[in-house]
Amino acid sequence: MDVRELVDQARQGRPRAVARLISLVENAAGSPARAGELREVMAELATGTRKPYAARVIGLTGSPGVGKSTATGMLIRAFRRRGVRVGVLAVDPSSPFTGGALLGDRVRMQDHATDPEVFIRSMSSRGHLGGLAWATPQALRVLDAAGCEVILIETVGVGQAEVDVARMADTTVVLLAPGMGDGVQAAKAGILEVADVFVVNKADRDGAQATVRELRTMAGLGEAPWRPPIVTTVAYKGEGADDLLAALDKHQAYLEESGEARRRRLARARDEIEAIALAQLRSRFAHLHGDRLDALAERLLGAATDPYAAADELIAALA
Amino acid sequence: MDVRELVDQARQGRPRAVARLISLVENAAGSPARAGELREVMAELATGTRKPYAARVIGLTGSPGVGKSTATGMLIRAFRRRGVRVGVLAVDPSSPFTGGALLGDRVRMQDHATDPEVFIRSMSSRGHLGGLAWATPQALRVLDAAGCEVILIETVGVGQAEVDVARMADTTVVLLAPGMGDGVQAAKAGILEVADVFVVNKADRDGAQATVRELRTMAGLGEAPWRPPIVTTVAYKGEGADDLLAALDKHQAYLEESGEARRRRLARARDEIEAIALAQLRSRFAHLHGDRLDALAERLLGAATDPYAAADELIAALA
Repeated sequence: MDVRELVDQARQGRPRAVARLISLVENAAGSPARAGELREVMAELATGTRKPYAARVIGLTGSPGVGKSTATGMLIRAFRRRGVRVGVLAVDPSSPFTGGALLGDRVRMQDHATDPEVFIRSMSSRGHLGGLAWATPQALRVLDAAGCEVILIETVGVGQAEVDVARMADTTVVLLAPGMGDGVQAAKAGILEVADVFVVNKADRDGAQATVRELRTMAGLGEAPWRPPIVTTVAYKGEGADDLLAALDKHQAYLEESGEARRRRLARARDEIEAIALAQLRSRFAHLHGDRLDALAERLLGAATDPYAAADELIAALA
Repeated sequence: MDVRELVDQARQGRPRAVARLISLVENAAGSPARAGELREVMAELATGTRKPYAARVIGLTGSPGVGKSTATGMLIRAFRRRGVRVGVLAVDPSSPFTGGALLGDRVRMQDHATDPEVFIRSMSSRGHLGGLAWATPQALRVLDAAGCEVILIETVGVGQAEVDVARMADTTVVLLAPGMGDGVQAAKAGILEVADVFVVNKADRDGAQATVRELRTMAGLGEAPWRPPIVTTVAYKGEGADDLLAALDKHQAYLEESGEARRRRLARARDEIEAIALAQLRSRFAHLHGDRLDALAERLLGAATDPYAAADELIAALA
C-alpha cells in the first residue's frame, strides 16, 4: 500500500491503517534510519483539511500501581458516552534492551477492543535517547488526523519522561493512591508542578482523605491562575467519573479563555520540530565516516581530550 | 577564584570546591548559555594525573517509597568502613517549572554531613530536555577528579531518566519493597532489564518473601552471562549490608573479567560527548536569528508545513 492510500485510510478512521502509521513512528524511533517513510507520511498528513492539533490531549501519570490504566478505561467510557472518537497512547518508557513491552495495560482495556471509535495503542520508547519526546508528538499527529477528538496519554512511572509527556498534553492528570508513599515522595518526583488536575484514586481505601488533605496543603502553597482541583475516584467501579470529567472540562475552558491553550500548542509544535531536528543530527553523528564518535570516546577514556573539545570535534565533523 | 585554583582544590578533595564545580554543572544544565566556565573546568580537569572514569559508579533506583535514600545511607557506611572516599549524587528529575528540589534525601543523610570523606550532592535536571543525560556524567567527572573511589547515584522514580542514569553506572541496583505494586508493574517500568543487582528492602514486612519469589521467577526467564542476584535488606537497621556489598563486589569482578567494564565506560564516554554536542546544537537552535523556531512552530500549527520539513529548515539555518 502506498503512503497516500495508507494516510487516506487513517483519515477515514480505519483502525489497521492508524495502527500501521503508529508502528511506523515506533519503528523509526528505534532506528532513525527507518524514518524515510515516516517523513513521507507526515508530509502527506499535513495536506489534510483537518486542523492540526485539533484533538484535546489529556495526559495521565503517577507511580506504578495507582490505577492509571483503570482510570484511563473509566475516562474512555465517559468520553464515549459523549459520542466522541477517543485515542489512547499507553506510553511505556521501559526496556531499552529488549524493546519489549508487557501487555498489562492493553489487557485491562480489552472491553474497548471492539469499539471502532476507540483507538488504543501501547508504545515504548525503545531506548532511543529522547525517544518519547520524539515519538509521542508524531503518534499524536496520527491519532489527530484519524479524527480523534480526545487523546489520552497514559505514562508509566514518574520521572523526566512524564514531564516530557506533560509538555505535550493540554491537561495533565496526576493520580495518587492512599498508602503509595507520602506526599513528600510525590513532591520529590516533581508531579505537583505538572498537575492540572489531581486524582486520588482507590478512594475507598484507608487513608484516602489523609492523602487528599496532604495534597491540598502542598498544592495550595503556590498562587496560580489555575489551582489544580483534587478529585477522588474509585476507578474500577467507575466512581468519580463525572467529577473527573467536570474538572477536565473546567480546565479546558480555562485553557481556551486564558490563551494558554494556544501557548501550550505552540510550545508543543516547537518541541516537536526540535526533537526531530536533534534526532536527525544524532543520526548523522552515528553515521560519521570511520565511527568518529567511538574514536572520540576512546580518546576521552584515555584522558587524551576533554568532553567539550570532543563535542566540538563531533559537531565540526558534521559539516 | 580562578578555574585552575578551583579545580586544584577539588582535586585535593575540598568539599566547597567540589560543591562549587557541581553547581556549575547544574546551573549550566538549566541555562546552556552559562556553559562557558564549565568548558574551562572540564578542560582543566582533563589535565589531571588521575585516570578519568576511575571511580566505581553504582546506581540505585526504584519506585518512590522503597527506601532508596536509606539504602544509600547504608552503602555509604559500608564503603566508609573500607576507608574509601565516597561520592553521592541524588538525582531528582523533578520540577522543570520551579527548579526546586526538596531536601528529603539530604536530611536523611545528615549523619554523614561531617565526614570529610563523603561528598553528598542533590541534583535536579532543571527541565532541560536530556538534562540528566547531560549533567550527570559531568557531575560524575567532578566527583571522580575529587578522588572518590565509589560514587553512588540515587534516582527518584522509574522511567526513561532512570534508564539513562543506568547507562552511566557500572552497576545498577534496583530496589523493590513488599506491597509497592506487583511484579508486573515493576516489569512494565522496565527495571528488570536495567538491574545488575536486585534489593528487596523492608524485608521485615509481610510479603517480602513473595516479592523475592516473584522477582526470581521473572528475572530468571532470560539467559545471560550475569544473572542478577536478589539481596534482602532492612536498610534502616543496616541489615543485609554485608550481603549487598558482597553482591556488588561480585558484579564488579564480573565486569572486569568479562571486559564489560571497559565496554560500559566507552559507552558512557560516547553518551557524554554526544549529550554535550546535542545540547550545543540545541542552544544554537534557540539563538537563531529572529527566533526561527517560533516562526516554524507557528507555521506548523497553521498547517503551513510538516514537522520534518520544519526540522530541515531548522537544521539548514544552523549553517
